[in-house]
Amino acid sequence: MSIGVCYFPEHWPEERMEADVERMADAGLEYVRMGEFAWARMEPEPGTYDFEWLDRAVSLIGEYGMRAVLCTPTASPPKWLVDEHPGILQEEADGTTRHYGGRRHYCYNSEEYRRETRRITEKLAERYADNPTVAGWQTDNEYGCHGTLRCYCDDCAGAFRDWLREKYGDVDELNEKWGTEFWSQTLNSFAQVDPPRHTAADHHPSRLLDYDRFSSDSVVEYNRLQVEILREANDEWFVTHNFMSHDDLDAYDVAADLDFASWDSYPTGHVQVQREAVSNDELRAGNPDNLGLDHDLYRSAANAPFWVMEQQPGDINWPPYSPQPGEGAMRLWALYAVARGADVVSYFRWRRCRMGQEQYHSGLLDGDGTPDRGYRDAVDAASDLDELASVAGDDADGSSLSTPDADVALLHDYDNLWALDIEPMTPDFDYWRHVETYYAALRERSVHVDVVPPTAELAEYDAVVAPTLYLVTDELAETLTSYVEGGGELLVTMRSGVKDAYDKLHDAAQPGPLRSLVGADVEQHESVPDAMDGTVVYDGREFGCRVWNEWLSPAEEGAEVTGRYDGTMADGTPAIVRNAVGDGSVTYVGTWPDSDLAGAVVGDLLDRAGVETTDAFPAHVRVSRRGGLTWIANFGGDSMSVDAPADAEWALGGSTVGPYDVAVTDADPASLTPLSE
Amino acid sequence: MSIGVCYFPEHWPEERMEADVERMADAGLEYVRMGEFAWARMEPEPGTYDFEWLDRAVSLIGEYGMRAVLCTPTASPPKWLVDEHPGILQEEADGTTRHYGGRRHYCYNSEEYRRETRRITEKLAERYADNPTVAGWQTDNEYGCHGTLRCYCDDCAGAFRDWLREKYGDVDELNEKWGTEFWSQTLNSFAQVDPPRHTAADHHPSRLLDYDRFSSDSVVEYNRLQVEILREANDEWFVTHNFMSHDDLDAYDVAADLDFASWDSYPTGHVQVQREAVSNDELRAGNPDNLGLDHDLYRSAANAPFWVMEQQPGDINWPPYSPQPGEGAMRLWALYAVARGADVVSYFRWRRCRMGQEQYHSGLLDGDGTPDRGYRDAVDAASDLDELASVAGDDADGSSLSTPDADVALLHDYDNLWALDIEPMTPDFDYWRHVETYYAALRERSVHVDVVPPTAELAEYDAVVAPTLYLVTDELAETLTSYVEGGGELLVTMRSGVKDAYDKLHDAAQPGPLRSLVGADVEQHESVPDAMDGTVVYDGREFGCRVWNEWLSPAEEGAEVTGRYDGTMADGTPAIVRNAVGDGSVTYVGTWPDSDLAGAVVGDLLDRAGVETTDAFPAHVRVSRRGGLTWIANFGGDSMSVDAPADAEWALGGSTVGPYDVAVTDADPASLTPLSE
Amino acid sequence: MSIGVCYFPEHWPEERMEADVERMADAGLEYVRMGEFAWARMEPEPGTYDFEWLDRAVSLIGEYGMRAVLCTPTASPPKWLVDEHPGILQEEADGTTRHYGGRRHYCYNSEEYRRETRRITEKLAERYADNPTVAGWQTDNEYGCHGTLRCYCDDCAGAFRDWLREKYGDVDELNEKWGTEFWSQTLNSFAQVDPPRHTAADHHPSRLLDYDRFSSDSVVEYNRLQVEILREANDEWFVTHNFMSHDDLDAYDVAADLDFASWDSYPTGHVQVQREAVSNDELRAGNPDNLGLDHDLYRSAANAPFWVMEQQPGDINWPPYSPQPGEGAMRLWALYAVARGADVVSYFRWRRCRMGQEQYHSGLLDGDGTPDRGYRDAVDAASDLDELASVAGDDADGSSLSTPDADVALLHDYDNLWALDIEPMTPDFDYWRHVETYYAALRERSVHVDVVPPTAELAEYDAVVAPTLYLVTDELAETLTSYVEGGGELLVTMRSGVKDAYDKLHDAAQPGPLRSLVGADVEQHESVPDAMDGTVVYDGREFGCRVWNEWLSPAEEGAEVTGRYDGTMADGTPAIVRNAVGDGSVTYVGTWPDSDLAGAVVGDLLDRAGVETTDAFPAHVRVSRRGGLTWIANFGGDSMSVDAPADAEWALGGSTVGPYDVAVTDADPASLTPLSE
Ligand SMILES: [Zn+2]
Ligand SMILES: [Zn+2]
Ligand SMILES: [Zn+2]
Repeated sequence: MSIGVCYFPEHWPEERMEADVERMADAGLEYVRMGEFAWARMEPEPGTYDFEWLDRAVSLIGEYGMRAVLCTPTASPPKWLVDEHPGILQEEADGTTRHYGGRRHYCYNSEEYRRETRRITEKLAERYADNPTVAGWQTDNEYGCHGTLRCYCDDCAGAFRDWLREKYGDVDELNEKWGTEFWSQTLNSFAQVDPPRHTAADHHPSRLLDYDRFSSDSVVEYNRLQVEILREANDEWFVTHNFMSHDDLDAYDVAADLDFASWDSYPTGHVQVQREAVSNDELRAGNPDNLGLDHDLYRSAANAPFWVMEQQPGDINWPPYSPQPGEGAMRLWALYAVARGADVVSYFRWRRCRMGQEQYHSGLLDGDGTPDRGYRDAVDAASDLDELASVAGDDADGSSLSTPDADVALLHDYDNLWALDIEPMTPDFDYWRHVETYYAALRERSVHVDVVPPTAELAEYDAVVAPTLYLVTDELAETLTSYVEGGGELLVTMRSGVKDAYDKLHDAAQPGPLRSLVGADVEQHESVPDAMDGTVVYDGREFGCRVWNEWLSPAEEGAEVTGRYDGTMADGTPAIVRNAVGDGSVTYVGTWPDSDLAGAVVGDLLDRAGVETTDAFPAHVRVSRRGGLTWIANFGGDSMSVDAPADAEWALGGSTVGPYDVAVTDADPASLTPLSE
Repeated sequence: MSIGVCYFPEHWPEERMEADVERMADAGLEYVRMGEFAWARMEPEPGTYDFEWLDRAVSLIGEYGMRAVLCTPTASPPKWLVDEHPGILQEEADGTTRHYGGRRHYCYNSEEYRRETRRITEKLAERYADNPTVAGWQTDNEYGCHGTLRCYCDDCAGAFRDWLREKYGDVDELNEKWGTEFWSQTLNSFAQVDPPRHTAADHHPSRLLDYDRFSSDSVVEYNRLQVEILREANDEWFVTHNFMSHDDLDAYDVAADLDFASWDSYPTGHVQVQREAVSNDELRAGNPDNLGLDHDLYRSAANAPFWVMEQQPGDINWPPYSPQPGEGAMRLWALYAVARGADVVSYFRWRRCRMGQEQYHSGLLDGDGTPDRGYRDAVDAASDLDELASVAGDDADGSSLSTPDADVALLHDYDNLWALDIEPMTPDFDYWRHVETYYAALRERSVHVDVVPPTAELAEYDAVVAPTLYLVTDELAETLTSYVEGGGELLVTMRSGVKDAYDKLHDAAQPGPLRSLVGADVEQHESVPDAMDGTVVYDGREFGCRVWNEWLSPAEEGAEVTGRYDGTMADGTPAIVRNAVGDGSVTYVGTWPDSDLAGAVVGDLLDRAGVETTDAFPAHVRVSRRGGLTWIANFGGDSMSVDAPADAEWALGGSTVGPYDVAVTDADPASLTPLSE
Repeated sequence: MSIGVCYFPEHWPEERMEADVERMADAGLEYVRMGEFAWARMEPEPGTYDFEWLDRAVSLIGEYGMRAVLCTPTASPPKWLVDEHPGILQEEADGTTRHYGGRRHYCYNSEEYRRETRRITEKLAERYADNPTVAGWQTDNEYGCHGTLRCYCDDCAGAFRDWLREKYGDVDELNEKWGTEFWSQTLNSFAQVDPPRHTAADHHPSRLLDYDRFSSDSVVEYNRLQVEILREANDEWFVTHNFMSHDDLDAYDVAADLDFASWDSYPTGHVQVQREAVSNDELRAGNPDNLGLDHDLYRSAANAPFWVMEQQPGDINWPPYSPQPGEGAMRLWALYAVARGADVVSYFRWRRCRMGQEQYHSGLLDGDGTPDRGYRDAVDAASDLDELASVAGDDADGSSLSTPDADVALLHDYDNLWALDIEPMTPDFDYWRHVETYYAALRERSVHVDVVPPTAELAEYDAVVAPTLYLVTDELAETLTSYVEGGGELLVTMRSGVKDAYDKLHDAAQPGPLRSLVGADVEQHESVPDAMDGTVVYDGREFGCRVWNEWLSPAEEGAEVTGRYDGTMADGTPAIVRNAVGDGSVTYVGTWPDSDLAGAVVGDLLDRAGVETTDAFPAHVRVSRRGGLTWIANFGGDSMSVDAPADAEWALGGSTVGPYDVAVTDADPASLTPLSE
C-alpha cells in the first residue's frame, strides 16, 4: 500500500529534475509514472532517438529509493509520423477524419500504426530491460478516451470483415444469427459488410453489437501486441493499463492480458459526467458508490489488487464545474481506494503544467513549484498508509494487504451494456445507474462485493446480484440454475433474459432461458416517463418504482409473488417474485426500484444467504474491510458518528468521523451502527 | 368495414405458415398485407428470383377466405444492389452519404434506381396479375420516413435543374419570380442552380420552397412509375400507398394517382413526436384530434374511404416512451378510424419480430406466438364491425358504410406548411398545431370536416376554415371571394395572404390579395415569447392569445371589429374582424387564440352558417357520424356520460362510455349533450 | 449629427427611384448608403459592367441635397464568379464546404478572390472618384457574420503557415512559445501545422489562439486591400466598415485602417442573442448597456465619432422573437447613439424588401411603400437632432458635437476574449457579460467611459477598470504599475494575469507579472454552479458572488483585505484586496460580483480617483454627456423622473422622461438624481 505520482520530466528544465525527485521521496512517494505522451521527445525525428532525459529521470528515482513505472508513448504519435502515415487517423461514422491536434489520433486496426507501435515499444523495452528501477509498464494511455474506441475507417472495415469471417465462418451463419431477413438485410458475402456508417434509419442491432465487440477486441489485440513485447523483454516487469472510460472497452478482456488493472480516478469529474443531478457534497468529493463500483470492477477484473494510476489531486480541467475539493478529500480518495483494494494510488500530476491542453489541471505542486493542497493530502495519505500497514501487518511480499473474499457477486457485462445502449427504449434507462442502484443497496449494508461477468465462477458466493442480465444463453441459464440449486441466493432484475447472444429475441417469452428458474414470465413491459412514476407494495410497505415496468405472471407451481404494482393501470399485477429452486432461491424484480425498495429486496436476499451486514449507512458513508481492519469513509461535508463496541481500537481517527475523513478500527463491521445525524 | 393485418411470412419457418393464416381467419381478419421489405428474399442474387414462399402465402390466404395486399419491395433494396449501384444512395445537405444499413437508402431521382424499380415491379405485377386472391397493391413503404424525402445528391441537382427549366422556361423568369436581385443571387442559367446545400447564412426562401416542391414532385413521379406498371398488369387491382410522414410529401399530389389513400397510425407515437407536452391519458391512447386530423386528411385526399394500413397493436419501439396502451385502446383506435371514414384497419404486425430493428414493436401475437393484448382487441374490433355493419346496412358494393357529406372544409396545404417551415419567425410557431387549434374547435362541436387544399371545390360547404393561408394568389382570392359572396362563411387566420406563390411578399400590405375580402389590413405583426402572452376581448369576454399578434386596421366601410387586444402595448387594437361580403361573411383572427377563443369564434361562424353542432365535448371525447349512426369515442382513462334521447337505440354500448371505449347509437349527434364529469 | 438610411435601388423598378429619393430628403435624411450586395447587378456577366442604375441613384441623391455612401459589393460574389472559382468557398473545421446560397461565401485568404476583389473595387473607385455626391465608402459588409470569420480550407492552411513563419521565424521558437512538448506536439517544420480541424480530443490552446489571431489578421489584410484602392482613388473620401459581430474580429486592428468605425445596431436582436434571460422591456427596446458597450467600443476603436451604419427600424427577422419595439424606440436608439458619440445614424432599410432572405425585416417604409412606425421615429429623430445641434452649437466642421474626454478607461481586448473562449472552464463564464458587469457599474453612475485595449495610453484617465486581464506580459505589468505609481486608480478582476502572450501559464502564481502590483497571490481558484452561489462581505455589508471564486493571499506588507468570502468552504478567505502603490492604488476582485458589489467597489474606486458621479440610476436609464448637454435616455416602459436644479433648461423634454423617450438638459449630470419610482 503506497502512494505514487505521475511525472513529466520532459516538461521542465532538466536542472530541476533532481530537486523534484528528491521532494517526491521526501513526501513519502514510492512510485513515479513517466513517459506516456513523450514519443516526440523520445524520437524527435524518424529514426533518431533520445532517451537520455528519461534515463536520467529513472536513475534519480532509483537513487532516491523509489521505483519507476514507464509507459509506451503510443497514445500520441508525433506529427511527423502522422504526416508519413495519414491513413492511421480515425474516421467518424459520417466519414469525417479525426485529425491530428489532440491525442489518441490513431486507428487500432491500422497495420501501419501497429508497425510503428512495435518499433517504439521494442526500442523502449530493450533500453530498460535490465534497469532495476523500472518496476513495470503501463501500455498506452486510457484506450478509448474522447470517444476513440470506435472508428469507421476502411482499415476497420477490412478488419471487421475478417473478425466476422473468423466468428461465423460462413455468411449464411451470420445471416441466421443476426436475423438479416428483416428489411432485406441478407448478405451474400462478408465483403458486403461495412462499418455502421451514417444512415437515415437505424442500424440492425445485431450488426451494431458485433461492431461494438469487434471494436473492443481490436483494442485487446492492439494492447496484447505491446504486452507481449514488454513481457518478452523482462518477465519480472508488471504490465498494466490505466482504464478511463468504462463504457466502450471490455475491461475484463483487456485485464486478462495484464498483471493487474489500474484506472484513473477523478471523483468530482466522474460524478458530474455520469449523473444527471449532483449535490454540493458530491461536487466537493464525489460519490463513494460511483467510485466504489469502478474500484471493485477493476479489482475484480484482474482478480488482483488494483492501482489508481491517476488520482485527482485538486481542481481539474475537464468537468463542467471544478469547485475546490473538500478539505482532506485528496487523502480521503487515496485511503478509500486502498480500502476497496488498491495497492498503489498515484496522483496525477506532480506539478501543474504550464502549457498545452491541461493547464487548468492541478498537481501536487502548483505551477510555480510550491506545494498545493493535494501535496499536503498526499503526504498525509502516505504517512497514514505506513501507519496502517504496521498495525495490520503487511502481506508476505510486502506489497499488499489482503482484501476479504467477497460474499456477494454483482454481475456486470459489457455485452449487456452495449446491447442496452443500442436499444435503451427510453431516454431514462442507464445501465450503469441501474447496476449502481443494487451496488449501493449492498454497500450501504457494508457488504464486500466482487464485480464480475456472468461467466465468473459463482459457487464461492453466498449471493449473486444480476441487474438487467439482458443477453442470456442456455448455457448461462444452466450455470445460474446450478448455482441456485446448490443453495445460492440469486437476484435478477428487469430486462433480463430478453435476448440471445446475437441480440435477437428468444423464441420463448422473457426471461427466455431463465423462465423455469425464475418461475414466471414477463407478460408485458412498458417504459414510462417521470409523470408515470408508480408504486410497488412489497412486504406490506409502499415503495416507488419508475422508468420500466414489467407485468409478471408466475407459472403454475412457479414463483411466489412478493411485490405488486399498486394504484396504476397495472394495479395488483405482480412486480416482484421469488422462486425456491433446489437449496436456494431466485428473486426477480420487474421494475426499477427506488433506493428503499432496492434496499429491502437486497436486505432480504442477504438475510436468506446468511451474509453478515450492518444497518444501512447514509449514502455518503461507506464501510470497507481490508487487512483485517474496518475502514469508515465519510464523503460528506459534516461529521458523522458510529456506535462502536467499547473495546474497539482505532488505528486511525475514532468513532466520530470528520468531513472528508476516514477512520480505521479493528472492530468488526457488523458491530458498528450509524448514529443518526 | 373490416380488419386486416400486416404479415411477414419470410420471417418465420415455412411450416408455421398455415397455422398462422388459419389463426388470422379465425380472428375475423379479412386482409393480409405482405412483401414490403422482402426484395432480398424475392431476388437473393441479381436476376435470380424466388417467389414461391409468397405464392404459397397468397394461396393459403385465399384458401382461408381472406385477400392479400401485396407491396413493391422498393423501400429496402438489397446490399448487392447498392454495391452494384452505389450512386443510388442519398446525400445530406452537407454532402454526407446516407449509407446502407437501415432502410429507404435510395434517391428518388436516381435513374439507375428507377430502372431497378421498374424491373422488380414488372416482375411482381406479371407474377400475380391473374391471382384472384390479390386485391391490390401498396407502392413502396412510407415515402420520406426517416427524413429521406429531401436529398442533395448530384442526381437531384440535375433533376432540380430540369424541374426548374420545365417550370420557368427562361432563367430570367426564375430570377423575377424568386427575386434573385437580393444578395446578388441572380442566375445566368439553370445550370447554376444547386440543391440548397450547407451554407453559412440562410438560403433564399424561394429557392428552398421550390426545392421542397421539387422533392415532393420527385416522389410523385417515382410513385407514378410503379402505379402505372401495376395498373397495366391488372386494372381491377386497387393501388394505394401507406403515408407516414405528413410533412415533406404532398399527400394530395400522390393520392391523385391512387385509388385511395392509406396511412400508418401509431397514436401514442405521433402524439409524443408532434407535441411538446403530453398527458398520461395521451400516453396511453393518443389524442383523438391529433389522429382525426390525419384520418380526415387522408380520407379527403383521395375523396374516398381510406385504410389504416398499419395500426398500432400495443407497445411500440420508436417514441421516447412506450407505456402499455389503455385497456381496449387497440379496439378504440380501429373503431374510431372507421368512424372517421376508414374501410379497413390493418394491424401492424401479426407477430412480434425476433430480429432486426423492430424487436421492441409488439404484434397481435407475442414473439412466442401467443396472443398478445392487441390480438384480443383486434378480434373484438372485427366482431364489433360485423355487428355494426348489420345494424347500419352496408353499402351496395359491400365494402363501405357511407360517411356524411361534410358541412365544413378545413383548408390545408403543403406549400403553406413548407413556406412557414422555412420562415417560422419564432420557435413557437407550428403550422400543424395552429391548424389543429381550429380542427379541435370544430370537432369538439361534433362537426364533420373535410381537410382539403384551397384549390378544392368549396361551394358545397356551409363554412370554410382557413388557418394561416400563407401563400395567396389573385386567383385564390377570387375563389374565396366568390365563395363568400355566394353566401359562404369563411374564417381566415393570422399570417394569411402574406406571400405570393413564389414565397415573395405581395406588393400590397397583408393580407395582400385578400385585403378587400377581409376588409382590413395588417398594420403590424409581432412574435412574442410565453412571457408576453396576451389577452383578447371578444364578445365581451376575455380570452388568451399568444405566439403571434397582428395589429389590424379595418378599411373605411370595411370590416367590423369583433375582438381587441387588451392591456398590453397594443391595448384596444383590433385583433379579430368580420366583414360582410355579398351573402356571406369573412372573419379574420389576427393572433393565435387559446382553445376557448378558437371555440367561441368557430361557434359563431357555425351559427351563422347554420351548421348543426353539439355543445363542446371534452378534448378526449369525439362524436362522429357514419353509416347513419353516431359514434362516441372516449380516449380518456375515465368513463364519461352523455345525455341522450330516451328512445335512442344503442348499437354498441350505452350512454355511459367506459375508458378507451366506443358507443354507437342511432340518435342524432345534435341530440346528445356531454354530462359534466 | 444626422440621420441616414440604407437603400437598395436595385430592388425596385427604376421609375420609383426619384419618388423614393425625394421622400428621403423630405424626411430630413442626409446620407444614403447603397451597393453592398449588388455585384451581380454591377457585373451581370464576367467583365460586363452595368453602373447606370447606381449613377442615377447617386445623381438623384445629390440633386436632393443628400450624400451617398457607397459599398464594395464583395460580401456576396455572384454565382458565375463562384462557379469560375469554386476554391474561394470556405470550409468548416470538419471539412464541409460552406456552399453558395446565402452570403459571405468566400475565404479571405483566397488569392483568386483577392484578385476579383481588387478588380471590382478598382472599377468602382475609378467610376465614382470624381463624383461630389459620394461622401465615402463602406468596405464589404459585416466581416465574419454567420460564423465566417474562421475558415479551415487549404488556402487558410497555407496562409496560416506563412503567418507563423512571419511571427516566429524558427519552428523551435514556436515550439517553445506554444509549449508543444505537451502530448508530443513538437513540430519539425512550419509545413506540419494545419488549421485546427476536427479532432477527437481538444486542440492545443496556444495553437487555437494563434489561429484566432491569424483569422482576424486575414480580415485586416483583406480589408486593407480595399481601403488602399479607395484611398488612392480619392483621398477625401472617408472609408469605414460596418462591424456586426464583436467576437471573432479585432475591431481595433481593422479600425486602425479606417477613418472611423461604424456598426450595425439591432437592440432587440443583440439582447436576445447575447443574454440568457431577457425582460419584456428589453424585448421592446433592448438594454442600454448592452448597446452602450458597443457604442463606446466603436467610438474608442477609431478614437473618433462613429456611425451606426444600420439602425434597427422596427421588427426584424433574425432574433428568436421580434415583438414590436416600444412606442418611440426607434427614435430613442438614434438619440442614444448620438449621446454616446455617433455622428450619423443610418436606418436599415429604406423599405421592407419583398424578396429573398430578409422579407421579415421591416424598413422605414412598409413593403407597399407606406410609412411604417420607423419612418415616423426617423423623422422625429432627424428633427430633434437639428434642434439639439442649434442649441448645443455644432462643431467647426459642421459634422460633429464633441464628446467629453472620458475620465475612466475600461480595458477590453480580443486576445483575452479568444483565450477565454478557448478555456472558459465553466459553462457560466462569459467574457462580455463579465466586462459588462463593470461597464454597468460605471454607467449607472453616469460616468463617461472609453473602451480601449490595454495597450492604450492610460495616463489621461483618472481610473482604469480592467475586467479579467487574462493575458499579461511583463511589459503590460510595467505599464499598469507606472499608471498606478503616477496616481492612477486601477481595478483588476478575477482571472487576470493568468497567462502569457502565448496562452501559457506564467511561472509565477496568478496574477503572474501583476503580483507585486496587486500585492497578493491567487492561492486557489474554483468554478461553481448556481447551487454554490456565495457571499462576500465588503465594507461591512453582504453581497452575492458566483461562477468563479479565487482565494486570495495578500503578500507580507502587501495588499489590504477589503472583502472576504462568508459562510462557505472558503469562509473568511480574502476575496477582494486593495494595494496602495506610489500615488495610486490597485483593487483586485477575485470573484464575479453581483451588480451591487460591483457598484460598491467601482463607487469606491471613483471616489478615490475623484471622478464625478451621480447616484446609481436604474438599469434602464442612462445619462450621457455630449455637446455640452446632458442626455437622459429611458429604455423602460414606464416614465421616470429626475430631480434637477430649478434653473435647468430642457432642450428636449423635461424632468419626467416618458417610456422609450429622451430628455436633454443643460444641467450637469452630477446635479441630477433619479427619483424612486
Ligand atoms: Zn479505423
Ligand atoms: Zn438524390
Ligand atoms: Zn479559407
